[in-house]
Amino acid sequence: MTNIKEIKSANKRLKGFVRETPILNSPFLDEIAGRKVFVKAECLQHTGSFKFRGGWSAISAIKHDERNNGVLAISSGNHAQGVAYAAKAFGIKAVIIMPEDAPTLKIDNTRKMGAEVILYDRLREDREAIGLKVSKERGLTQIKPYDEPLVIAGQGTCGLEIAIQSKMLNISEADVIVCCGGGGLTSGIALALESEAPKLKVRTAEPEKFNDVALSLENGKITRNNSLTGSICDAILTPEPGKLTFPIMNRLCGSGLTVSDDECLNAMYLAFLRLKLVLEPGGAAALAAALFRSDQIKGDSVLVVATGGNVDTKVFSQAIKNYM
Amino acid sequence: MTNIKEIKSANKRLKGFVRETPILNSPFLDEIAGRKVFVKAECLQHTGSFKFRGGWSAISAIKHDERNNGVLAISSGNHAQGVAYAAKAFGIKAVIIMPEDAPTLKIDNTRKMGAEVILYDRLREDREAIGLKVSKERGLTQIKPYDEPLVIAGQGTCGLEIAIQSKMLNISEADVIVCCGGGGLTSGIALALESEAPKLKVRTAEPEKFNDVALSLENGKITRNNSLTGSICDAILTPEPGKLTFPIMNRLCGSGLTVSDDECLNAMYLAFLRLKLVLEPGGAAALAAALFRSDQIKGDSVLVVATGGNVDTKVFSQAIKNYM
Repeated sequence: MTNIKEIKSANKRLKGFVRETPILNSPFLDEIAGRKVFVKAECLQHTGSFKFRGGWSAISAIKHDERNNGVLAISSGNHAQGVAYAAKAFGIKAVIIMPEDAPTLKIDNTRKMGAEVILYDRLREDREAIGLKVSKERGLTQIKPYDEPLVIAGQGTCGLEIAIQSKMLNISEADVIVCCGGGGLTSGIALALESEAPKLKVRTAEPEKFNDVALSLENGKITRNNSLTGSICDAILTPEPGKLTFPIMNRLCGSGLTVSDDECLNAMYLAFLRLKLVLEPGGAAALAAALFRSDQIKGDSVLVVATGGNVDTKVFSQAIKNYM
Repeated sequence: MTNIKEIKSANKRLKGFVRETPILNSPFLDEIAGRKVFVKAECLQHTGSFKFRGGWSAISAIKHDERNNGVLAISSGNHAQGVAYAAKAFGIKAVIIMPEDAPTLKIDNTRKMGAEVILYDRLREDREAIGLKVSKERGLTQIKPYDEPLVIAGQGTCGLEIAIQSKMLNISEADVIVCCGGGGLTSGIALALESEAPKLKVRTAEPEKFNDVALSLENGKITRNNSLTGSICDAILTPEPGKLTFPIMNRLCGSGLTVSDDECLNAMYLAFLRLKLVLEPGGAAALAAALFRSDQIKGDSVLVVATGGNVDTKVFSQAIKNYM
């Protein structure tokens, strides 16, 4: 089980390579939410999402000889870019298994970062089987997107930053809302805050029909959601929380929040207008929850993690046109 | 004449109130420019531009009694918001004189920040005369947008940050390109770097037909440009550099760079795509120069100041549609 020691160790490996992303705010957002809203801008991380943290954490911990064989990741996008970018910095090969319907930008970026991309059919092929086969054949180390202690530890470094920054911003007690897919970032931040800022309580934000984490937290056990497609929040669509991440979330997180796709688009527009940040739909879910679920949040302040900004231009264009 | 002592003193007054904005980069931008491109994201400053620094610096230095009477600013937008926001934080009145054709968003924001806005006709009325009359009648202290030592000192704090951050990024020698209107930010940064990082050389970026600073630097004396309207870079359209700012720029800056409106739109798109930043046209001029004037820049690295992000939604939407 990942612990604070491993997060601090990942933090040492990341030092000098990761960006300490800023926490931003705007009186206009505070007015909508009815409390102070602080936005941890992980969309400004290398590769446009927090995933670089976990990718670098994992790759930097692999033994030298093994690492030189290269790494493999299965990902719909942000994890792919995080791993590809980290692999390139280490001068090693990265093979990325991506669904063929992933946003073009994400596939292109992954390739441009020097990775080999293998596309699969999301409905007909088993990505896990492909991943296993390719990594075995080529001797690659597979880096899982969330159910991997080194990845959870890497994402947890975001929580260490939040603990330090929130003290400087005089945020002593608040909900910390995290856009949640498999739970790697959420569980990592929850562990970091448990140790470093225990009055900051982590909660999850998910799309309405992909609320597997909220359901699992409610039921106290891993619960699958029925949907597989049907939300624009592609970065955080998972069938169920991870086997390693859920016990951590179950122990440390408050109740889960859910938001609609339209609310995510609205939050993207407001982040554009008021913070000058580009968010992708899944990366805006936590901000949407802070703005439009005020009644389910307590306290004078709320902190949200804006997890990513790798949005297709058309989707972004639509978001700012709809709400301007 | 403003000096490094005044900048450091402004820095003390700003501490805890100003945001230390991050410096971002992307291998995709490096590829276009043919060298490493570092972007100081001042669009993430309070009110979406660097102008907050100068506004706060000036207001915080006014004697208590005088300050309580309130302040006045004449501005097409970003200076207005910077002064209005700083005034609100001090709990004092702000009156802002704005051209009636300024972007709606900027007028609205200034009002929402609690300021009283007085609109004038850019072609028929004398804004300086209005400003003088109103400040005299109401006992307000006028805060000039750039030709004011306290404002130059405030903007210079951005240069102090660049000096520290560039050391951490191992940038030892580089051009520092600044989007330039009247020269407050440019001269402030130039003074800060002269003292703290003398191998970083400040250069200006301006729209093609509004290259009064480039012309003035070339001629060694203040030279007016002929255009008054006709560029989308509204934030940096000035007829000539300031009387206080020009001698500083003339002593410390390299030759001026100019870019087209289309290049600014293209740079906005690339900042959106690669850095997840929202820039306004005038705030993207320095990035445009770094990307599209490579032949006029030397060295392995270039640092640009992305000065603001207060863009009308329609203009932004157009930029990302044109280049996607």
